[in-house]
Amino acid sequence: MSLKFKNAKRIEGLDSNVWIEFTKLAADPSVVNLGQGLPDISPPVYVKEELSKIAAIDSLNQYTRGFGHPSLVKALSCLYEKFYQNQINPNKEILVTVGAYGSLFNAIQGLIDEGDEVIVIVPFYDCYEPMVRMAGAIPVFIPLRSKLVDGKKWSSSDWTLDPQELASKFNSKTKAIILNTPHNPLGKVYTKEELQVIADLCIKYDTLCISDEVYEWLVYTGNKHFKIATFPGMWERTITIGSAGKTFSVTGWKLGWSIGPKHLIKHLQTVQQNTVYTCATPLQEALAQALWIDIKRMDDPECYFNSLPKELEVKRNRMVHLLESVGLKPIVPDGGYFIIADVSLLDTDLSDMKNSNEPYDYKFVKWMTKNKKLSAIPVSAFCNAETKLQFEKFVRFCFIKKDSTLDAAEEIIKAWSRQKF
Amino acid sequence: MSLKFKNAKRIEGLDSNVWIEFTKLAADPSVVNLGQGLPDISPPVYVKEELSKIAAIDSLNQYTRGFGHPSLVKALSCLYEKFYQNQINPNKEILVTVGAYGSLFNAIQGLIDEGDEVIVIVPFYDCYEPMVRMAGAIPVFIPLRSKLVDGKKWSSSDWTLDPQELASKFNSKTKAIILNTPHNPLGKVYTKEELQVIADLCIKYDTLCISDEVYEWLVYTGNKHFKIATFPGMWERTITIGSAGKTFSVTGWKLGWSIGPKHLIKHLQTVQQNTVYTCATPLQEALAQALWIDIKRMDDPECYFNSLPKELEVKRNRMVHLLESVGLKPIVPDGGYFIIADVSLLDTDLSDMKNSNEPYDYKFVKWMTKNKKLSAIPVSAFCNAETKLQFEKFVRFCFIKKDSTLDAAEEIIKAWSRQKF
Repeated sequence: MSLKFKNAKRIEGLDSNVWIEFTKLAADPSVVNLGQGLPDISPPVYVKEELSKIAAIDSLNQYTRGFGHPSLVKALSCLYEKFYQNQINPNKEILVTVGAYGSLFNAIQGLIDEGDEVIVIVPFYDCYEPMVRMAGAIPVFIPLRSKLVDGKKWSSSDWTLDPQELASKFNSKTKAIILNTPHNPLGKVYTKEELQVIADLCIKYDTLCISDEVYEWLVYTGNKHFKIATFPGMWERTITIGSAGKTFSVTGWKLGWSIGPKHLIKHLQTVQQNTVYTCATPLQEALAQALWIDIKRMDDPECYFNSLPKELEVKRNRMVHLLESVGLKPIVPDGGYFIIADVSLLDTDLSDMKNSNEPYDYKFVKWMTKNKKLSAIPVSAFCNAETKLQFEKFVRFCFIKKDSTLDAAEEIIKAWSRQKF
Repeated sequence: MSLKFKNAKRIEGLDSNVWIEFTKLAADPSVVNLGQGLPDISPPVYVKEELSKIAAIDSLNQYTRGFGHPSLVKALSCLYEKFYQNQINPNKEILVTVGAYGSLFNAIQGLIDEGDEVIVIVPFYDCYEPMVRMAGAIPVFIPLRSKLVDGKKWSSSDWTLDPQELASKFNSKTKAIILNTPHNPLGKVYTKEELQVIADLCIKYDTLCISDEVYEWLVYTGNKHFKIATFPGMWERTITIGSAGKTFSVTGWKLGWSIGPKHLIKHLQTVQQNTVYTCATPLQEALAQALWIDIKRMDDPECYFNSLPKELEVKRNRMVHLLESVGLKPIVPDGGYFIIADVSLLDTDLSDMKNSNEPYDYKFVKWMTKNKKLSAIPVSAFCNAETKLQFEKFVRFCFIKKDSTLDAAEEIIKAWSRQKF
C-alpha cells in the first residue's frame, strides 16, 4: 500500500481507545451497562424543553459566534463570577468548546510545545496521555497512592499525592500539570491543603495548570469542591474546564467550556478557529436558557446543581452497600459518579479469556460483560504503561443510573455471589 | 509576562480570522448581512421538527458512538452509495465530524506531516492555509485564472487551472491537494475534464486528494457536480467532505462527514478520538431522520436536494441582474450560494479608511458596511499573502437569503447607484 496512506507521525500509536472497545461490548441490549459515564436518568425536563423550543427558531439553527454563543458566555460568566474573586469577561476569558474534551484539546494544542513536559496524575481520564503525546510533549506521571485502611471503610480521600514525589516531577521543562477534581475514576475531591501544595509548585516552577473540573457540582456530604484558579497567584496560570454534559446530565450535547485569563484563553481560541471554528448553536442557546433557570435559584435545594448530587449520593451509598455485600471493598468516592472496587477478591477464573497479555481488569470486564451481562470499565485504562500493574485489579462502575438499572445490576451481582459461596 | 503564557509554536501567526472580524462588523442589526455564508431562509420544517421531537428522548441526549451515530452513518452510506461505484461501509468508510471544518482538520492532522507539501487552489476557503500550517506542512498555491470575457457574461467556468502550471506544483514531497467543488467563493463547478487532469496528477505523483464538496447539491442549470473519488484510481486516495449545514440550511448544527477508504478514514478517526471524541447526539439523530425523508424521494422535485438549488438559482439570477444594473460585472456562479463582483468599477473614495495597508477589498467592505449598511466578505481573505493583490478588487456576496433581505440589499445598492450617476 502507498506510503502516502500512512498516518501522520503525530498520531502514531494513539489509535487504541478504551471507550470504543468497551462501548462496543456493552452495546448488546441484554447487558446492564455500568461502563461509560453515560447517565440513563432523565435530564431535567426544562433542559430538554429548551432544546425542543429552540429547534423551531430559524436563526438559532445557524452559525453563531465562534468562541461561544453570546447568551451562553454571558450565562457562564454570571454563574462562575459567584466562585471566582474576579469578574469574568464573557468574550475574552471564556471559550465554549466541543465538550470538555474539546477544551482539553484546545488547551494542550494552544499552549504545549514539542518537548515540553506535562505532569499527569495517575489514574487519569484516559485522553490526557494521547492528547499530550499528540502535541509532541512528554507526559510525566505521578500516581495517587493509598494509605493502609485496615478495618475501616476505604475512601477516595485515602488516595493522595506524596508532596516530595510531586515536587520531584517539576523542573524547568515542566510546562503544565493536568489536575482533575473531583477525580475520574477515583472520585477523589482534592482538599484545600492538597491543592495548595500543587499551587505552590506551579508558582515556584512557573507552570500552567489545566484543571478539569467537569464533576464540580457532584460532591457528597462532608466534602467541598475548591477551584485552584481562585488560589493566590493561580488565576493567571490556570485553565479551568467545565461540562454541560456533566452539569445537566446531557453528555450527548458535547458542550464544554474553558475559563481563564485572556492571555491564555486567546491561544485556545486560535486553536478553536482552526479546528472546528464554532459549536452547535441550538444546543448552546438551550444550555444558556437552562443555566439561567438554575443560576436564579442556586440556594434552592431544587436547583439542579444541588439536587443532582443529593440524588447521586443515594445511588453511591447503594453501590457501596451492594459491592460490600458480596465481599468487595469499594473505594467510596467523595465526588463524581463512579465507584471503584478491587475485583481480584472475587477470584474469578479468567483462564479461558483470549488476549492473555491484557491487564487483569480488561480480561475481567470482558469476562463479566460476556458471562454476567454486566459491563464496567477497567481502571488500568486510566494508567500509563508503567502503572497499569498498580491498578489492574480495579474496575470502575458508573452509578448515574435509574433505579431499575441499579436493580438489574444488583440482581446480577447478588446471583453471582450466591453461585460463588 | 511569563514565557510559559506564550502560544505553542504550531499556532504562531494563525490567530487572525476573517469571519471573526467581519461577523463582528455585520452584527449591527441595521446592517443587511450578505457576508458570512449564513442562510436566513427557513430550514425545512421537518428538519427542525425532528430536532424538537428528539430533544424529548432521554437516551438521544447522551453520548453516542464516537465515529458517528449509528443511524446517521447508515443514512449517509445509503445516500452516497447512489453516487459511488462501491458500497460504503458505514462504520469504516464514514466519519461524522464537527462540521466540514472538523473533517478538514481531522484529514489534515491525520494524514499530513511536518514538511509535507499540500497544493491549495487560490482563492480558497480561508481555513485551508492555517490548517495546513498548523500541521507544520507547506501550502503550495496555484491560482485559478480567468480568460478574457469581452462583451459576454463572466462565468465562474471562465476561471480555470492551467494544466502545465498545476503539474509544475506536484513533486515527490506533495502529500495532498485540497479540492473544492462547487467552489467557494467563485461558485465554480469543476468539469469532468478538469477533474480528470487533477486525478491524473494525483495518481502520477501518488498524492492524496481532500475534496471539499459541501455545496454538492447546489449546482445550477447546465452544470453537473462530479465526485473525484469516483474517478478510476481515486477512491483509494480521496477523502470527500460533506456538510449538514449546507445540505439542509442549518449551518448552526455543525455536523459534517468524511467519506473515504478505510485505510485513510481510520487515521481521521484517531484524530477525532483525541480531539472531540464524538459529535452531538440529538443533532445527529435529527439529521439522520431528515436524510431518510429526502433519500426516499430523490427523484422528486420536492426533495430538498433538488428544491433548494431551484430556489437558489432564482436568487442567483436576481443578484446577477442587480449587480449588473449598477454597472458591475459579476462572475455568475455555476454552484454554491455566493456571487463575486469586481467592485473597483464603483470607484469608491476610500481615502478616509484607516489601516491603509489593508487590501482594497477589506477597506471597501468596511466602508460599505459602515456607510451603506450592507456587508459582504472581501475575496482577498481567501488568498495567501502573495495572491491577495490578484483578487483584492473582488467582494463576495451571499445570496441564500430570504426575499426581504435581498429586497433590502437591492434598495441599498440602487440608492447608492442613483447617488453616483
